[in-house]
This record gives sequence, structure tokens and C-alpha cells, in this order.
Amino acid sequence: MRERQAEPGGRVQDLLDLLALEPIGVDRFRGPIFNTEPLNWVFGGQLTSQALLAAGRTVDPDRAPHSLHAYFTGRGDPSVPVEYAVERVSDGRSYATRRVVASQHDKVIFTFDASFQLPQDGLERRPHMPSAPTPQALLDADDQPPSVISWPFQRLRAPAGPAQAPATIEWLKAWRRLPDDPLVHACALAFATDIAPTPLVLEMNDVDLAHQQVSSASLDHALWMHRPARADEWLLYEWQAPTSSGGRGFAIGRVFAADERQVATVVQETTIRIRS
Amino acid sequence: MRERQAEPGGRVQDLLDLLALEPIGVDRFRGPIFNTEPLNWVFGGQLTSQALLAAGRTVDPDRAPHSLHAYFTGRGDPSVPVEYAVERVSDGRSYATRRVVASQHDKVIFTFDASFQLPQDGLERRPHMPSAPTPQALLDADDQPPSVISWPFQRLRAPAGPAQAPATIEWLKAWRRLPDDPLVHACALAFATDIAPTPLVLEMNDVDLAHQQVSSASLDHALWMHRPARADEWLLYEWQAPTSSGGRGFAIGRVFAADERQVATVVQETTIRIRS
Repeated sequence: MRERQAEPGGRVQDLLDLLALEPIGVDRFRGPIFNTEPLNWVFGGQLTSQALLAAGRTVDPDRAPHSLHAYFTGRGDPSVPVEYAVERVSDGRSYATRRVVASQHDKVIFTFDASFQLPQDGLERRPHMPSAPTPQALLDADDQPPSVISWPFQRLRAPAGPAQAPATIEWLKAWRRLPDDPLVHACALAFATDIAPTPLVLEMNDVDLAHQQVSSASLDHALWMHRPARADEWLLYEWQAPTSSGGRGFAIGRVFAADERQVATVVQETTIRIRS
Repeated sequence: MRERQAEPGGRVQDLLDLLALEPIGVDRFRGPIFNTEPLNWVFGGQLTSQALLAAGRTVDPDRAPHSLHAYFTGRGDPSVPVEYAVERVSDGRSYATRRVVASQHDKVIFTFDASFQLPQDGLERRPHMPSAPTPQALLDADDQPPSVISWPFQRLRAPAGPAQAPATIEWLKAWRRLPDDPLVHACALAFATDIAPTPLVLEMNDVDLAHQQVSSASLDHALWMHRPARADEWLLYEWQAPTSSGGRGFAIGRVFAADERQVATVVQETTIRIRS
């Protein structure tokens, strides 16, 4: 195996730093900013992963997150930390739900709800994993683009095949091993699932980024975690952008482990503004 | 056209009655119960549609709802009305978001967030509508099951074709004309999109309802309204239940108008409990 890019130093450490939230009161936490320079904005996946961690810290640790729903309600300020306030909405025998509100300068920039479940057995049904070259095959192929540094993640785009259209397939994993805490892996997955949608929605809508002034931002983020997954092992992401209308794009992603289990579904709506 | 079932009296009126929320304070509303006898429980679609209406009543009427995310957090009591408290989370130039908490006996049973947008033009991209017999063809066919009364909605199940598997396709419309208020149609769509998932997830998992004791309930509900739609005209619903695991089922629905525009995507996770 030829590594085409060295690991970019501290970016996995930056992810872990994000998840070392500072307690600042009862069910309240403060989180640092993930550096997005030169873009200089607050990355949505940071907010989702920190909110999931804050929620999880208030839930019995034997319960695992299985879904989350979030709205991006205001522009973040990358120069100050983010404060998270958790509300304990419900604690049942099997399920617990939490609300998290993220603020800066006492203004709400992000709202988030998640549900946690005491793991149980049940019906098993799963779809086929989309066919795609293995990560190793992509790394070994001379005619493939090099792996891309997506912050803490290594990212390998599979070449488009006619059978796959109109889906985009890529593999992602953290550049190095993460701690064995399942909540940390869920948070890393939440972070990773927000990397692709916005640019992919533009690409899959054939927006001509060279000749059109385009802006795009995430409106919401929904993630269902069907089965446990490790974010430091290769996960296959299949993305589709089936519909766009009224200045809004729409992406659906399915995430599979290398053993072909579907581990997650993610949905995100985005703004698309074009000034030709 | 042969109508195989007479309109079941007041059920469209019951839907309209649900949406005649009673103001009980600043951004607070009370809503009646939709009668589900003999089942005697609170239907999730009632909560989603009433919460969407409550949220919409606090938003500039030129903004239309385009998405909502909800959690069912506690068991409803069908013997008392539901109280809805709206929080005005954000009001931007293009988008507004609202949080709605539904309570009974001062206990939260349902939480809900929705986003509203000032309508704008933009990129248009849409998928193909699944192929299916028209509603008229289904009503005219002698070998088709009669249309089913799904409360306020007439429901026509398309026969399963090998090409469609593992999807289920059905047409729904309100039994009679609804008022021309777009918010009412969005609320009716929110109601309708909660009718199928729970039973369909069981059916698509081949659960043997005759020989297994099964219980199932909605965990959450997410709805993206891509384009305006009338709930009193035929809409095609295509449902899939791609994955089930850990006592949880998962349904994705796509909704198309008869003119083939995709008008919505809906996602719902459900509990599945089987005692053989």
C-alpha cells in the first residue's frame, strides 16, 4: 500500500479536542472551535458532534445514540467557543431523549435533538451494500486521484460507474485510531456525515463552480445510526441528491461498514444560492 | 368510476377540526384528540399536524414550511386535549425556525422543530416518479382490493410488481376538498405520512401478525416538503423499509404529485417488539 498523503498532523487530535467538552454548569458545556482556515467559519459537523457528546454525557452510559435531528439556525462565530445547554426531555425504560441548544454571544446558532436506546436484540434486515472498489484497490490504482485530506478523515472517492449514477460513493476513516468509547465513534460519524453533502449537492446538480457565484449552507442534519460502527475503520458513504427546488438542495446518504452492514442513514437539506 | 366505499362521514371534518387549534396564551394552543377508536390511542400524525399548524400560526404567512423533525417522547392520553407551546427559535431574512412542545397533564409527549422559507426560485432537479397504475386504473380494476378508508384519506394500494420490490406503492388523497390554505395542506400531508410507516415496516419485515405478538410505535418523524402539494388530490407514496436492527425498524417514503413532481420525502424510525 502506498500512502499518497502523510497524515495531516493534529487533525484527529483536533477532533478529540472538540469532544473534550468543558463542563460549565448543570448539563451545560463549552466546546472549542474546529479550525476551518482559510474558510474561517464554524463547521456544522462540529456543532452536531459536540451536541451529541453533550447529550450523551447526561444519559446513562449503557444507552447508545440511535438518531439525531438538528437545525442550523444562525451563523456561527469562529472566534469564540460554543456553549451547549442540554435539556433532559425524557427518560423511559428503553429510550431517552435530549434537547441541546448551542449558543454564542447568548444567541442560538443551532438546535439539536437526539434519542438513546438501551441496546436490544431484534429483527435483522439489511439492504445490499452498493458495489464499489475496496479502499485498498483505490489506494493501489495508479489512475485514481490521491486520497483527499478531509480534516480528521482520509477520504477516497470511487470513480463514477454508469451503474452507480446518480450516486456518489466514497470511503472515509479517521486518519488514526480513536478511543474505544462508542459515543466518541458516534460523534465522529456525526462529524464525518456533514463533510460531503453541501459540495456534493452542488456537484450533483451540475453547478458550474468556475463560472457561477454560488453559496451553499446546511439547513438541517438528520442521522439514524442503525448499528454500531467504528469511525476509524473504512466506512462506505453512498450519496444521492435526488431533488432540488426553491433554492434548496437535498442529500441522502447511506453508510456501510466494510463487512456490508448498513450502519447509518443521513439526510441533509442545504441552501443553494446562485448569482450568475 | 365506481366508488367502492362511500366517504366515511365526518373524517375529513375531523381533520379540519384538529387544525382549528384554540389559542390559550402567547404562542400557546390547545388541540382536540383525533378519535382512533377502537384503538384508543393518540395518533402520531395528529401531533405532527397540530404542531406544524401551531408553529405556522406564529410565522409570517408568506413563509411556507419546508421541513420538520419530531420525536415521540411519551405515551399520549386520548381522553384529554393536547397543549402546544411554540418557541420562536429564529427569524431570518429567508428562513424561520420554530420549536413546539406538546404536553398532556404537564408532561411532554412530543417535541417538534420546523423550518419555514420565503418562497424563492432556484435550480430544478427531480427524480423519475416510480411507475405505477393510475388511481383510476386501480379503481376500475375488478381484481384490485377495494380502496381502504384511512380516516380522512382514501388509500389505494398498487399491486406489488417485481420491479418495484422491495418498495410499496400507494395513492392517497383526502376524501373531499380541503380549504385552499397551503399550511392546511402541509398539515394534512404531515398527518398522511404517518399512517403507513408502522404497519408497513412490520409487513416489509415479513412479520407474521397472525402468529406473533407484535407491538410497534413511532419513534420519530421527519418530513421534507420539496414542492407545494395539495393533499386533496392524488399523491403517490413509495415506501421502503431498507434496514431493521436492535428492535428498531426504519421507513423512507417518497411522495409524488400526479404530474410526477416529487413533493416530499419522509423518514420514520419505529420500535418493533416481538413476543413469539
